[in-house]
Amino acid sequence: MEKLVLARRASQIKEELRQRMRNHKQVIDVSWGDPQSAGVKPLSFVRQVLAACLYPDLMNSNTLPLDIRQRAQRLLGECAGGSVGSYTATAGISEIVYRISEFITKRDGGAPSQPENIYISPGSQWALSNILKVLVNSEASPRTGVLTPEPCYPLTTFSIKGLGGVTVPYHLSEEQGWELQVEELHRALDSARGVCNPVALYVINPGNPAGYVQSRKSMQDVIRFASEKRLFLLADEVYQECVHGEKSEFLSYKRVLAEMGPPHSDTVELASFHSASKGFLGECGLRGGYVELVNLDPDVMKCIHKLFTIDSCAPVLSQFALDLMTNPPQPGDPSYPLYSKEIQHIKTMMAHNVKRVFEVLNSLLGFSCQPLEGGAFAFPRLYLPPKAIQKAKEMEVEPDMFYCIRLLEEAGVLVKPGWEYGQKEGTHHIRFCIMTSEDTMEEVLSRLSSFHTQFMKDFS
Amino acid sequence: MEKLVLARRASQIKEELRQRMRNHKQVIDVSWGDPQSAGVKPLSFVRQVLAACLYPDLMNSNTLPLDIRQRAQRLLGECAGGSVGSYTATAGISEIVYRISEFITKRDGGAPSQPENIYISPGSQWALSNILKVLVNSEASPRTGVLTPEPCYPLTTFSIKGLGGVTVPYHLSEEQGWELQVEELHRALDSARGVCNPVALYVINPGNPAGYVQSRKSMQDVIRFASEKRLFLLADEVYQECVHGEKSEFLSYKRVLAEMGPPHSDTVELASFHSASKGFLGECGLRGGYVELVNLDPDVMKCIHKLFTIDSCAPVLSQFALDLMTNPPQPGDPSYPLYSKEIQHIKTMMAHNVKRVFEVLNSLLGFSCQPLEGGAFAFPRLYLPPKAIQKAKEMEVEPDMFYCIRLLEEAGVLVKPGWEYGQKEGTHHIRFCIMTSEDTMEEVLSRLSSFHTQFMKDFS
Repeated sequence: MEKLVLARRASQIKEELRQRMRNHKQVIDVSWGDPQSAGVKPLSFVRQVLAACLYPDLMNSNTLPLDIRQRAQRLLGECAGGSVGSYTATAGISEIVYRISEFITKRDGGAPSQPENIYISPGSQWALSNILKVLVNSEASPRTGVLTPEPCYPLTTFSIKGLGGVTVPYHLSEEQGWELQVEELHRALDSARGVCNPVALYVINPGNPAGYVQSRKSMQDVIRFASEKRLFLLADEVYQECVHGEKSEFLSYKRVLAEMGPPHSDTVELASFHSASKGFLGECGLRGGYVELVNLDPDVMKCIHKLFTIDSCAPVLSQFALDLMTNPPQPGDPSYPLYSKEIQHIKTMMAHNVKRVFEVLNSLLGFSCQPLEGGAFAFPRLYLPPKAIQKAKEMEVEPDMFYCIRLLEEAGVLVKPGWEYGQKEGTHHIRFCIMTSEDTMEEVLSRLSSFHTQFMKDFS
Repeated sequence: MEKLVLARRASQIKEELRQRMRNHKQVIDVSWGDPQSAGVKPLSFVRQVLAACLYPDLMNSNTLPLDIRQRAQRLLGECAGGSVGSYTATAGISEIVYRISEFITKRDGGAPSQPENIYISPGSQWALSNILKVLVNSEASPRTGVLTPEPCYPLTTFSIKGLGGVTVPYHLSEEQGWELQVEELHRALDSARGVCNPVALYVINPGNPAGYVQSRKSMQDVIRFASEKRLFLLADEVYQECVHGEKSEFLSYKRVLAEMGPPHSDTVELASFHSASKGFLGECGLRGGYVELVNLDPDVMKCIHKLFTIDSCAPVLSQFALDLMTNPPQPGDPSYPLYSKEIQHIKTMMAHNVKRVFEVLNSLLGFSCQPLEGGAFAFPRLYLPPKAIQKAKEMEVEPDMFYCIRLLEEAGVLVKPGWEYGQKEGTHHIRFCIMTSEDTMEEVLSRLSSFHTQFMKDFS
């Protein structure tokens, strides 16, 4: 509750600032994983195909490259009445679902993927909520528990609690680059004894808000733990394209599970989520994601099918976006050179931002930032002076919220306080999106540095 | 449950037919309110603006009319980062919400509408589900009741039951053109005594599946009833543009309520739903709708705000579509002549279909169709021969389902059986969409007539 009130307050301050314009040209909002709002350009390939699908007259001229027009034609051919204005099957257009399953198989080194186990939805979070509805029994006593990382993406913990479930937090180890340690999973599970009945384990890889990327070894440990404790594995993998560390590599839980072989590969129940909002597409506004389900009991699949069937289909254009994301242009296609250049540009931009954020934050007294291996966020630790903590107490807000409000008011930068994600007692953090244009990130870092230096002085 | 199984069976038969191609060129699916899948062309104005928003390079040439480009520019200016790829506020882009409130005020003859009472959502049904979540207490004993029409759009009854509520059906009077009679509301409410605790009354106007349009008098009766019995009024008004009867006129519940004056206008709680999927736009695939809330308790508004805030925003392009629907081109705008011609075309098409459906169905022995005053569907009564009913019994399906399966198998026309919507014991109906191209409707009627004549012969 307090969270919403504070969020609203932040937005009021933001609006106020916007109108007064104070010393800042504008408020920079890096509080969400919303790259296009922070100056990242959409991929021309995606936008051209979608525009042609919306307004097929565009295909009559040579304005758009041939493969774009062919792609649009094919997608429209897969819609009822040849129009993006028609409903589709609830799980998504079957041809697109099929091509997504091919993408997964290829991504996962051949581990087979079945189209009938894939559901397209209006965003991955929506799919996750539906799966949680099946897992969390709102009337159970003791209540249903779900192991969740700390720090954790808060919409997931909201969903679990909203369904009458209980979150069982396991701490990621900040000092070890936010590593997920299996002993901590055991501790968390023990802590649930007598409190709730844990049925699932939620992991986010690459991380959000913390920017870790799990190794194969770490994932194998998690899978063995899930298997031993009979936990359903919920793998949030929406940042799979965002891997920055040179030694890091994204591996899907599906792949690691398949490659472990029986009995694990045949028994551990897994739901893996992906999205058109994150990664290089960054099309948050289209609202499209999907879930792939592995090793589910046929009766549970029936329940899930029913839940997805009660609502209408995902927006057709977001289904197309998922198709374009999982089947990008190939060398030789007329649109490939531009596509490839734009992807390279995003990669360069991310590499720049990752390097600069790490350098700048760690150069500031009172900040410490773990290496940013993956994902779209920085989640640096903030060492606040006792006077600042005292002041926050007087104002009845969390200390890192106090910092965020000041940062917004004085420097026009909107970030999120760590306490919204969960953090170890007595520690403080901020979260901000690093998937922004280079200019935006430089401006954020410059404003943050000046503000922070002054803040530390004011409260020293 | 049986419904889902039967629906799946119908879709299997459809797929099978599609592959075998039998005697029919193709299966015609008029089982949904999905105009574009049935040959209705989208409005150029809408598609041009949306395409320009998706791919702003289109604004650099003169391919698109000036007002289209200006409109696209303005909409993009209202998005974070100037892109449809960004998230928006959960209730929708504030400028669009504001313009929707202006549209409502104008539509309702000046009855004021407050932007803060409007929420844009991914489809109106999604908004309705959210409001139901607030109204239906899943743990209450006796259970929460909602009065629903019979016949009724089934996703709403699914939602109510899915939340642990109970539907309390009130019968629409078929013989009186599916009129909603207030005595029947009293009967229904009495029937709920000892069974559940009714808290809300759901009305669909213009009707679905039955094509009635309520008069002001009828709506006033309903409002007085709701007021007296302290029921929350849920008004599904998504077919407000679809009024065919020459003497019929769409009036919103909001307007009738406001014009009744105090005490009703200040006290009756109302939620009114509208959508970009229905009416002349027919953009089902974009997934956009909105709800306006009237006279709600501030605490209830807070709950609703929270529910809408847990999920992300509606797709940005669907928000734009709602803006375009509620603020169409005006005389003098370059895009007006084409827009106006296309709207006229849809009206002519609908008038044709309404006339022909009524004529043809009522000319067939064993069909009787009430006048089609509004909405997008025909819901004719079917008088099945005893032998057909017997045969259905043997096959363990509902008699009108049996008819629908045969119609699909033998004539390649997919319609819905009346029993899915609720109907008086011993009566049978079918529902099909009449918002199709004229050619499609003629083909449907021709296939239906031949099939029906043969069917009646076979089972005589």
